Amino acid sequence: MADEMGVFETIYQCRAMRRLKPDPVPEDLLVRLIDAANQAPTGSNVQGARWIVVRDAEQRAKLAELNRKAVTAYIGPQSGRPAALPHQPADKRQRMLDAVLWQADNMQHIPALVIACYEFPEPVPPSGAIRAGGSIWPAVQNLLLAARALGLGAAPTTLGLSDRDASRAVLGLPDNVEAFCLIPVGYPTGNFGPVTRLPVEETLRWDRWS
Amino acid sequence: MADEMGVFETIYQCRAMRRLKPDPVPEDLLVRLIDAANQAPTGSNVQGARWIVVRDAEQRAKLAELNRKAVTAYIGPQSGRPAALPHQPADKRQRMLDAVLWQADNMQHIPALVIACYEFPEPVPPSGAIRAGGSIWPAVQNLLLAARALGLGAAPTTLGLSDRDASRAVLGLPDNVEAFCLIPVGYPTGNFGPVTRLPVEETLRWDRWS
Repeated sequence: MADEMGVFETIYQCRAMRRLKPDPVPEDLLVRLIDAANQAPTGSNVQGARWIVVRDAEQRAKLAELNRKAVTAYIGPQSGRPAALPHQPADKRQRMLDAVLWQADNMQHIPALVIACYEFPEPVPPSGAIRAGGSIWPAVQNLLLAARALGLGAAPTTLGLSDRDASRAVLGLPDNVEAFCLIPVGYPTGNFGPVTRLPVEETLRWDRWS
Repeated sequence: MADEMGVFETIYQCRAMRRLKPDPVPEDLLVRLIDAANQAPTGSNVQGARWIVVRDAEQRAKLAELNRKAVTAYIGPQSGRPAALPHQPADKRQRMLDAVLWQADNMQHIPALVIACYEFPEPVPPSGAIRAGGSIWPAVQNLLLAARALGLGAAPTTLGLSDRDASRAVLGLPDNVEAFCLIPVGYPTGNFGPVTRLPVEETLRWDRWS
C-alpha cells in the first residue's frame, strides 16, 4: 500500500495538534474518520460507540465556552496547575499549555468538534459509563491516526465536557448516552512532527512488576 | 512508505485474533509493540502507561487459570450469557464464543501475555484507576495495530483480570499501579481478515443527538 501512510509512520508522527485553521473539512473526510474509529474493538463486540460531529456555529460556540471556562479553572494562571504538570521539561510543558490556551480561545472557529459517545442499553449510572472506557478510547485512537493520515489535526480533551450537565444539555444527550471526550478536528496551522515519549525500557517489565 | 502496511489497511484488517500458536515471539518484536503503544496520547501527557510482558511459563499458567475461571463464570454454558450478547447474528456470536473458549483452554500456551497497566503518583482509589481509561486504552489500540502490521495476533480481555486481588498478587502490582487488560500475543493459527462493523451512518449524528 504505497499510496497511504504506513501504520508505524502514522503512530510515530501523531502528535496532538491543537492549533487548527477555520477552513472547513470536507464531509466525506469527517465520515471517513468516524468509520475508521468504529473499526476498533469494543467489549463483547457490542459496538456502542456513537459520534456527534458538531459543525453548527452556534453549537460550536456553546461548547467552546464550556471548554474555555474549564481550561481557565484547570490550568489558568491562578490555578497553580502549570507548575504541577509532571514528566515534562519546562519548555515542553509551556508549549503544551500555550497550545491548550490557544485552543480555549479559538475553539469556536475550529470547523468540526467531534464528540465521542457511548450508547448503553439502559440509563447510565456514572460508574457504568466510566467502565466502558475500553470500548470507546481505542476508537478515539483510530480516529486520531486516521486524521493524521489525512493531513488533519486532532487531539482529544475531556476538560471541555467536565461540566457534565451543561455539555449534555448542549448536545441533547439521552439518559443512556455518555460523552467521553471532545476532539477538535481541522487543518493544522503548523507542521506535523514526531511524537516524543519515554524510552520504552522505562515502561516495560518482564513477567511481573517486582 | 511502501514497505510497511498502510494505516487504513491495518485499521480495517485488525480483527481480534484469539487462536494463537505456542511459537515464541522474538523479544525485539514485543518491545516494538510496547514502544508503538507508548506513542499514544495520555491525559496532560503524563505518560503513566506501564507494561508487563509475561513469558514465564509458571506466570502464564497462573494468569490462564484466573482467566479460565472468569470465562467459565461469565460465558460458560450455565451462565445464560451467550444468548444475551447483543448486536450479533447467531453464527458470528457463536464463532466469537468458540474463540473465547478456545483461548480460555489454551492461554497458558500462548507465548506472551501483555498486561496494560497505569502507574499513578499515589495509591489507587478504584474510581481513580478507572477514570484513567483515556490514558491507557489508546495505547492498547496502537499495540493491536502494531501487532497486526507485524503479523501477530492479539485481542484485549478484561475478564482475565476480573479477580482483581488474585491477578494483582500474581503480577506483584504495587498499590499505585492498576492493570486494565490482558492482551495475549502470538502468531495466529488462522488467517487475518477484514473487520465487520456497523454501517457508519448508524453511529454518526450531526451537531446534536436530537
